[in-house]
Amino acid sequence: MGLTFYERVGFEGRRPSPYSWRIRYALAHKGIDFDVHPVRFADVETIRRLSGQHLTPIIDDDGKVTHETWDIANYLEDRFPDRPSLFGGAPGRGMAQFIDEWASAQLGPHLRYVIYADFPAVLDPGDRAYFRSTRERNLGMSLEAACAEPESKLAAFQYACAPLERCLSSQPYICGSDPAYADYIIFSIFQWARLGCPKEVVARGSALADWRSRMIALYDNLGDRFPGYPAGHPDRS
Amino acid sequence: MGLTFYERVGFEGRRPSPYSWRIRYALAHKGIDFDVHPVRFADVETIRRLSGQHLTPIIDDDGKVTHETWDIANYLEDRFPDRPSLFGGAPGRGMAQFIDEWASAQLGPHLRYVIYADFPAVLDPGDRAYFRSTRERNLGMSLEAACAEPESKLAAFQYACAPLERCLSSQPYICGSDPAYADYIIFSIFQWARLGCPKEVVARGSALADWRSRMIALYDNLGDRFPGYPAGHPDRS
Repeated sequence: MGLTFYERVGFEGRRPSPYSWRIRYALAHKGIDFDVHPVRFADVETIRRLSGQHLTPIIDDDGKVTHETWDIANYLEDRFPDRPSLFGGAPGRGMAQFIDEWASAQLGPHLRYVIYADFPAVLDPGDRAYFRSTRERNLGMSLEAACAEPESKLAAFQYACAPLERCLSSQPYICGSDPAYADYIIFSIFQWARLGCPKEVVARGSALADWRSRMIALYDNLGDRFPGYPAGHPDRS
Repeated sequence: MGLTFYERVGFEGRRPSPYSWRIRYALAHKGIDFDVHPVRFADVETIRRLSGQHLTPIIDDDGKVTHETWDIANYLEDRFPDRPSLFGGAPGRGMAQFIDEWASAQLGPHLRYVIYADFPAVLDPGDRAYFRSTRERNLGMSLEAACAEPESKLAAFQYACAPLERCLSSQPYICGSDPAYADYIIFSIFQWARLGCPKEVVARGSALADWRSRMIALYDNLGDRFPGYPAGHPDRS
């Protein structure tokens, strides 16, 4: 009974999925206890049987199964209305949906071209071939080809980050003085990079770097609860 | 006494400034009465004397002068807390600031390359040379050169619009079921295009086109209160 969180798990307990991170933070924000059911890419049939589709994360709340992170966040907000709000009301929920679409369309996609060549190392060895074949089919090229000319790929991502840097130069969180779901959406993208490759994608001393540090430290250092990139990461030296 | 809105006015009463539009909508949202003090580019000294800088709009609320649209919106929200909220609370205010930065950095700039060659016609004839010289200096080229290859310039703008289209496919306004300041920010960019050039920048039948129609109709058709582009516009035929 209670709430079960079906979450993709990688190499030796790693959590490289950005979608899991935003829901982990949402659950922590609301103070909801949950059990974790770790899944691998190879467990696709379990996920499909529960939710009718194959993507993670999903939550099972006493038999009520929800997938798609935006729908999960809305489910948690409405199911636990007396806990701290993820959106701060109806206008905030609307704006968070816009930010979710922006992150999906114009922030996250750039990172594939920065991290994908390094990413298989954080997956369970049994999932690496599946990841490579599905992603290479989507990209129309090898992971290594996608990540060629790394300076220009990083520059494209950092251009997309410009409004975040400006916003976070004048307020501590995207949601103002305190973090809420829009912060978790954006942080999950940076966590994907931070745990999924050995490169630093955020400029040292930037407002974004400071915000990311604050985000990592929330909820008893939730952002550091699982192992980092196998070869280490420059911000943890 | 009361509130005076210093607003840039163009050719024969036109209002081509996007920054004025977002504040006009904010004032209407809050139901605030105000006087308009029309200014031209040539009135730069009036604006500088009042606000210490040369950009419009500014508001003068019984001697309290505020410039910068984000600061004006915040001033109105805090000065009139019992009127309908522009942000819907602190998290919404934070997210609206992010959307403001996004629109300034990654939505609006693309439109310069779509509309600038047509734009002088909506300005007071006495302001056209000033507009041309200052903008051409910023761009490093003529207005006409900036607007060359119009299909690729429009495509770049429409790419930037993708998260708006997706968001507005699932909710009527950026702020959810009802409009608020983030809608006014984004609408003001589309109003700049709609009143500043004869081209249509929004695909017919799109969620964005429907939203724009709803936005125009708000507050007794506020979006159509002033004359359109001198040569007409395809969405008003």
